[in-house]
Amino acid sequence: MRIAVLGTGMVGRAIAGRTAELGHQVTVGTRDVATTRAGDWAGWATARPEVGLAGYAEATADAELVVNATSGDGSLPALTAAGEDRLAGKVLLDIANPLDFSKGFPPTLSVANDDSLGERIQRAFPRTRVVKALNTLTADLMIHPRQLADGDHSVFVSGDDAEAKRVVIELLTSFGHTDVIDLGDITTARGTEMLLPIWLRLYGKLGTGIFNVKIVR
Amino acid sequence: MRIAVLGTGMVGRAIAGRTAELGHQVTVGTRDVATTRAGDWAGWATARPEVGLAGYAEATADAELVVNATSGDGSLPALTAAGEDRLAGKVLLDIANPLDFSKGFPPTLSVANDDSLGERIQRAFPRTRVVKALNTLTADLMIHPRQLADGDHSVFVSGDDAEAKRVVIELLTSFGHTDVIDLGDITTARGTEMLLPIWLRLYGKLGTGIFNVKIVR
Repeated sequence: MRIAVLGTGMVGRAIAGRTAELGHQVTVGTRDVATTRAGDWAGWATARPEVGLAGYAEATADAELVVNATSGDGSLPALTAAGEDRLAGKVLLDIANPLDFSKGFPPTLSVANDDSLGERIQRAFPRTRVVKALNTLTADLMIHPRQLADGDHSVFVSGDDAEAKRVVIELLTSFGHTDVIDLGDITTARGTEMLLPIWLRLYGKLGTGIFNVKIVR
Repeated sequence: MRIAVLGTGMVGRAIAGRTAELGHQVTVGTRDVATTRAGDWAGWATARPEVGLAGYAEATADAELVVNATSGDGSLPALTAAGEDRLAGKVLLDIANPLDFSKGFPPTLSVANDDSLGERIQRAFPRTRVVKALNTLTADLMIHPRQLADGDHSVFVSGDDAEAKRVVIELLTSFGHTDVIDLGDITTARGTEMLLPIWLRLYGKLGTGIFNVKIVR
């Protein structure tokens, strides 16, 4: 599959590296290629020559699956730069969390309760098939779930398009996830984004991000 | 222990019945005793003659532990009726969730993100030692956790007073809970109250409330 991963941070690199390793054709999208190359990108990218780097629009143009791995407040600008027409019809795996650090730690959510970032993205890009997933995990656990309890824990998908969720569930399964729960339409992204406050507290308490929820039923 | 359980609904009855069964001296507190007796209370209470029924203030007066099992919007009025002086110094186990059903299903939270019902109660009753717990579970699972995966799932406590949390953790352990996670001070109640949106979606999807999160770590 041709995959565009928007975002060059820990999440973007994790998803890009893992999907390339699994044989997909991957291009990482960034706001400004020169700035990214001038940073610590080279060290990461040298070991992964098969992963491309391009501007948001160019990375998105030929992709079949687009991954939003930007920050919460950077998501709508990045997707706008990628282009509404280029995103039309595509599956968008949205991993971003609307964290607001402006009042210190722990951050609050910039949108919650009666709306979510996933819904905002779906409303802003109505022709794109948005699927919220993986935002409840630390980056390394997104791509290597078996490192924790041999994968015996849960992840979630939220989205309006059943076929788009099927594509994402297949990708998550290829990463090693064994319990992918389809919560329903994109409004259920409120539930997974609102897991962040307890996630952040558990992260502080446990001193590691290598933990996850399992829905015991 | 002398326990006052404020609230006559499913949660109040579950906690009252279970704590009485475990040998505690239990009085259920209600807004109006005559109204409660005129409802379906008798059928429940006949089988539990050891559980008392009294007004909020009378039930609270001699209690060592007070349990808030009222609805989210009924909590502050009920506790105000119980009386600030009578609640002073006592441990208050707060189980309520600030659910707002005014816009239909699923409900939103009437307070979230930068505040919580647990914090509001602690601020309104500064001499009371508030511990948020059990609000992430259906009533029957609060009191009989071993019915699901032999108890292999997690519950949480949030509160400012370490000794009060110890009392609550001991009570939860006596119910059969095996993994009680102390998240920290009362502000961490935001995290457990904000679990409600995903809980409600899972409830709809699974068709039962007999499920819970386990923090796999």
